Amino acid sequence: MNITADIPAGLVRQRIERLQEAMQTEHIDAFLITQNIDLYYFSGSMQNGYLFIPSTGEATFYVRRSFERAKLETAVRVAELGVFRHFGQTLLHDYPSLFRDGVELRIAADLDVLPAQTFHKLSELLGASGRCSLIDGSAHIRRLRMIKDPLEISRIEAAAEVVAEALNESLNELREGVSELAWMARVEYELRIRGHIGQMRMRGYNQEITTGMVISGAAAAVPTYFDGPAGGLGLGAASPQSVSRSIVKRNEPILIDIGCCIDGYVIDQTRTAVIGELPVTLKHAYEVSESIILATEQRMVPGTLCSKLYEEALASCAASGLSDHFMGYGADQAKFLGHGIGLEIDEWPVLAKGFHIPLEPGMVIAVEPKFTFPGQGVVGIENSYLITEHGAKALTRSKAELIVLP
Amino acid sequence: MNITADIPAGLVRQRIERLQEAMQTEHIDAFLITQNIDLYYFSGSMQNGYLFIPSTGEATFYVRRSFERAKLETAVRVAELGVFRHFGQTLLHDYPSLFRDGVELRIAADLDVLPAQTFHKLSELLGASGRCSLIDGSAHIRRLRMIKDPLEISRIEAAAEVVAEALNESLNELREGVSELAWMARVEYELRIRGHIGQMRMRGYNQEITTGMVISGAAAAVPTYFDGPAGGLGLGAASPQSVSRSIVKRNEPILIDIGCCIDGYVIDQTRTAVIGELPVTLKHAYEVSESIILATEQRMVPGTLCSKLYEEALASCAASGLSDHFMGYGADQAKFLGHGIGLEIDEWPVLAKGFHIPLEPGMVIAVEPKFTFPGQGVVGIENSYLITEHGAKALTRSKAELIVLP
Repeated sequence: MNITADIPAGLVRQRIERLQEAMQTEHIDAFLITQNIDLYYFSGSMQNGYLFIPSTGEATFYVRRSFERAKLETAVRVAELGVFRHFGQTLLHDYPSLFRDGVELRIAADLDVLPAQTFHKLSELLGASGRCSLIDGSAHIRRLRMIKDPLEISRIEAAAEVVAEALNESLNELREGVSELAWMARVEYELRIRGHIGQMRMRGYNQEITTGMVISGAAAAVPTYFDGPAGGLGLGAASPQSVSRSIVKRNEPILIDIGCCIDGYVIDQTRTAVIGELPVTLKHAYEVSESIILATEQRMVPGTLCSKLYEEALASCAASGLSDHFMGYGADQAKFLGHGIGLEIDEWPVLAKGFHIPLEPGMVIAVEPKFTFPGQGVVGIENSYLITEHGAKALTRSKAELIVLP
Repeated sequence: MNITADIPAGLVRQRIERLQEAMQTEHIDAFLITQNIDLYYFSGSMQNGYLFIPSTGEATFYVRRSFERAKLETAVRVAELGVFRHFGQTLLHDYPSLFRDGVELRIAADLDVLPAQTFHKLSELLGASGRCSLIDGSAHIRRLRMIKDPLEISRIEAAAEVVAEALNESLNELREGVSELAWMARVEYELRIRGHIGQMRMRGYNQEITTGMVISGAAAAVPTYFDGPAGGLGLGAASPQSVSRSIVKRNEPILIDIGCCIDGYVIDQTRTAVIGELPVTLKHAYEVSESIILATEQRMVPGTLCSKLYEEALASCAASGLSDHFMGYGADQAKFLGHGIGLEIDEWPVLAKGFHIPLEPGMVIAVEPKFTFPGQGVVGIENSYLITEHGAKALTRSKAELIVLP
C-alpha cells in the first residue's frame, strides 16, 4: 500500500498536547474523539474508530477498520478496537492509573456531532470501566481548531488557487440561456480534476453542501433551510437549496458562491457576475458589500471582537438603507457576517452577535456581506482571510470585482 | 416563489398514519422527527425544524427556517418554531390532552442520527413540559422506510436511468493513461447535468459518499474505513477512499461503482471494466460474482430471510475457493451482500448475518457481490432490485456484463 502519514508526527503530538492542556485547565480526565474530521485533526487518520486521549500520557487510536491503513496514516499508537462491547474493559486494561477504584472520571467527547444512540452505547460501555460521565467537550475542539498552523494554511491556500483556476476556466461558458445546474456542473468538473474531494464538510446537523452554489435572478433570492445568506431554489423539495434548473438571464445578478476541499481543507469565496448590467438598486447594494468587506478587512486585527465586526457591518447597512436585505430577507435573514473555515466550512469563530471572542493570529475567516432582493436576486462578495499579527491577509485569489460579461 | 409540494398530501398522511400505528403498538406517545431526510419522508419538506407526531391526531411541523418555504412544500400543519428554549411550553400549549399532569410520556426520536448535544437540549426542553423520556425510535423509521411506495420506486427508476446514461456517455473516454480522478470527474459531470443533487446521502455516522467510486488495479484493493466491499486509495488521508490519482492501466480491473441522487432518491450499481483482458484469477472471480447475483436474484422472493441470502452467497464463495476475497480481504472484509436503498444509500434491509427479516414487496435492495485481490484489484457486479410479489425486478438499466474495452 502506497500510503504515508500526511500530517507530521510532531504536529500531531503538538495538537494532542494542546488538547491535554485544555483538559487539565477544565478538570477533564480524558477525551474520546469520535468524528472522522476530529480524528483526522488529532491523529492524521480518519479510519473508523475512537481516539482516546488521557489528560496526561499517551493517546491510543482504537481502530475498527482499517487497522492496517491507520497504522500507516498516523503517528499515534494504534490498537485494534476489537469487540465493541468490551471497549470499557479495554480502556480499563490499557489505562489502569486513570481508571482507579472509587475515582469518578469526567470524559469529554465531541457531542455536537456524535449521534445520541452511540453516545448512550459509549456511556454504558465506559460505565462498565468504573464511574464515568461522558460530557460535552466539543467547544474545546472547536476552540483549538480555530487557530490554524502553517500546514493548514498552506492547504487552504492550495484550495483557494484551485477555486480561482476553476472559475477562470469556466467563465467563458457562462452565457445567457445556460441553466444554473449546467454551468455549476462545468465548475464542479474543473474543481474535481484539480483534486476537490467531491464535497465540503459541514459540522452542523442537517447541513450539506457540495461545492457551494451558482444562483441567479429571482431563483437566488428564494429562502432555504441552509444557514447562510443566500438560498437558491434548488432541485426540488428533496434538495431545496443551491442550483436549480433556472436559466441564466441578461441583466440579472449571478451569485457564484463556490468552494472546494483540497487535502481536507476548504476555501469559500463569492463573486457576483452579470451578463449586461445590474439594475441600479442591486448595483448599489453590490458596492455596499464591497465597502463592507474592505472596512472589515481593515478592522480584522488581533484583539478585535468578532461580534464588533458584525455590529459594524449592520451599522453600514443601516446607513445605506439596506438593513432589510442584509444576509437574506425578512424572517429568513442569516445572523452573521462571516465564519471560520478549515477542515469544515462552518468553523469558529463566527462574526455574529454574542460571539465576543477577540481575533487571533492563525484564524481563517470567510467574510461574506450579501444582499437579497426577493424577485430580483442576491449580490455580494466573499473573501477568506488569514488573521496575522499585522492584520488580515486575503487568501482568496480571484480578482475582487463585479464580473461583467458582454 | 415557484415552489410546490412534491409529495402528494395523501401520501404524506399515509406515511404519518403508518408511523402512528407503530407508535400505538409500541406504546410510544409521540414522535419527534429531527433529521432532514426523515423530515422530508414524513412531511415532504426538509426545512430546518422539528416534526412532532402524536400517536393519534394531527402532526405539526415546527419550522425554524424557512417557514415560508415549508408552508409551500408540505401538507402537514406548519407552525413557527419560535424561541427554541420555549419549545416544551409550545408543545404543552398545542397538545394539552397529551401533556396531562401526572402522565409520564414516552417520546421517540431518530436518535441514530440526532447529535447527543441536541438530544440533551431537547430532553431538557421536553422535561419542562411534563415528565417525558426521549427514547430511540430510529428502528421504527428505518422499518417503515424499508418498504417503498410507487412514487419512491419511480424516482429510483429515474436515478437508474441517469446512471446508465452517464456511464454510456463516459465510456468512450475510459482509456489507458487516464487517472481515476479525471474519469470520475467526467462521469460526475454527466450525472450532474442530468439532475444529480451532488451527493448521495448516508445515514451512518462518519460515512460519506459523493457519487461512488471508480477504482482500478492495486489502488482499488486498498482497505478503507468505508463500510463497503471496496475501498480505494482516495485522495490522501483526509479523503481516504474512492478515486485516487492512480492511472488506469491495461489488463487491470476497473471497478465502476457509481450512483446518483435524483429528486431525493439514490441508485447504486457496479460494473467491472477492463482495457484488454482480466488476469485469469480475476476473470474467474468476476464470473463467480455474476453467478452469485443471478442466484440471489432467483431467491429474492417475498418471505426469504435476508440473512439466508448472505449465507448462501458465502457458501458459493467457499465452493469456489474465494471466501478470503469476498467483500474485501482478510480483516477488512465487509460482512454483507447487499443493502436497502432509497433516500439514503445505507437503508434497511441489509443482506447480512443476523438480519432475520423476510423480504417483502416494496423493498429495494442493491446486491453487490465483489472480490478483492490485494495488489491486483477488485471485481464484481451490483444491481438494484425491487422486490415484488412475483420476485425480484432489476431496476438497474446498464447491461449486466463485463465491459471489455480494446
